[in-house]
Amino acid sequence: MQISELVRRSGVTLASVKFYIREGMLAPGEAVNARRAEYGEQHLERLLVIKALTDVAGLPLARTKRILRVLDQPDRSLAEMLAEAITAAADDQDDVPRAEEDLAAAYPRASRAIATLGPAFRPRMPALAQLDRALEAAEASGFPTAEEGVGLYGPHVQAIAEAELAGLPTDDPASAVRYAVLGTTLVEPVLAALRRLAHQNLAAARLADDEA
Amino acid sequence: MQISELVRRSGVTLASVKFYIREGMLAPGEAVNARRAEYGEQHLERLLVIKALTDVAGLPLARTKRILRVLDQPDRSLAEMLAEAITAAADDQDDVPRAEEDLAAAYPRASRAIATLGPAFRPRMPALAQLDRALEAAEASGFPTAEEGVGLYGPHVQAIAEAELAGLPTDDPASAVRYAVLGTTLVEPVLAALRRLAHQNLAAARLADDEA
Repeated sequence: MQISELVRRSGVTLASVKFYIREGMLAPGEAVNARRAEYGEQHLERLLVIKALTDVAGLPLARTKRILRVLDQPDRSLAEMLAEAITAAADDQDDVPRAEEDLAAAYPRASRAIATLGPAFRPRMPALAQLDRALEAAEASGFPTAEEGVGLYGPHVQAIAEAELAGLPTDDPASAVRYAVLGTTLVEPVLAALRRLAHQNLAAARLADDEA
Repeated sequence: MQISELVRRSGVTLASVKFYIREGMLAPGEAVNARRAEYGEQHLERLLVIKALTDVAGLPLARTKRILRVLDQPDRSLAEMLAEAITAAADDQDDVPRAEEDLAAAYPRASRAIATLGPAFRPRMPALAQLDRALEAAEASGFPTAEEGVGLYGPHVQAIAEAELAGLPTDDPASAVRYAVLGTTLVEPVLAALRRLAHQNLAAARLADDEA
């Protein structure tokens, strides 16, 4: 297909397509003559992955490139790619310290909270920093019980994550990585809405009990 | 206490304190003389509730006022206040239609998803609009399986919400409303971080299995 069709089918602007080619994120088309290049389905699929990572998941360019590099390494197992892509997509403003005692010092709230969850949650992941920031924000805002809540949330969240990973497509690594990264981002608002719905339902039910 | 002490202890600026008094959200101090008014602990507590709702939960002024009005109505049961405050805090850009058939038409994705969850989730709440928007965004971004996922998430989210509501302080309505509204907002990032941590752990475990 011509580049105009690639633009139309992907929903990515011409300027962005050219930018991704310049940055080495998308392979150039095959030159048909001096003025025209031909693009294939693999270009379209690659563009949809880039669009998903940047527009939808909102990842910065550097992190998107890291994930694309993971996808471009041949001879990797799916599990290997997945672990690297999930880590590359994570909101890791800070590097995770190496030793256990450093972890406890760097992320005191998250380390304490995770310790209550048992061996299913091993504290060596970038999301630990994210958890520590979330707990610190809750505490600073007059909600110190968020940390205790982790012991309650943990098993449910673990069950959700296990079922999600079980649904991962295993036929091709690009789909798996796209599913994992998109699923992480896009399902967060769904879970938040469901929890609010449950609160509203429970409060309404309590009200009905009072009135009965 | 003088207004300067109220400002210092609440962490709310003088300009904001005066604004809240002008808007009728905070009672004026008791005039000691023409130039000075005296404020009590109830002023401080009220300011902390306002701060929590606006700064922390990020609610717009109109919604904060609605919640304060709920708190100011005497002779209401705790359950009644809670149900109203949770609804007032919700991200209800749209009014929820009255009839069941309107609901299904207005929020097709959320209605279908909720139907799979059984009677625990009754579809008459503002969060239904939020859920529908989240599912629509996921679908538009190439993640149509989010809707099917609701059946999986529902029971876990329900268990989380029940435990959260069980931990609600029941001694005074202002604390209960503050806990409910703040908890809804502040715990969302905690749950999101925990889920990411679980994904990272599971992907790492799968990788270790492959290498073994």
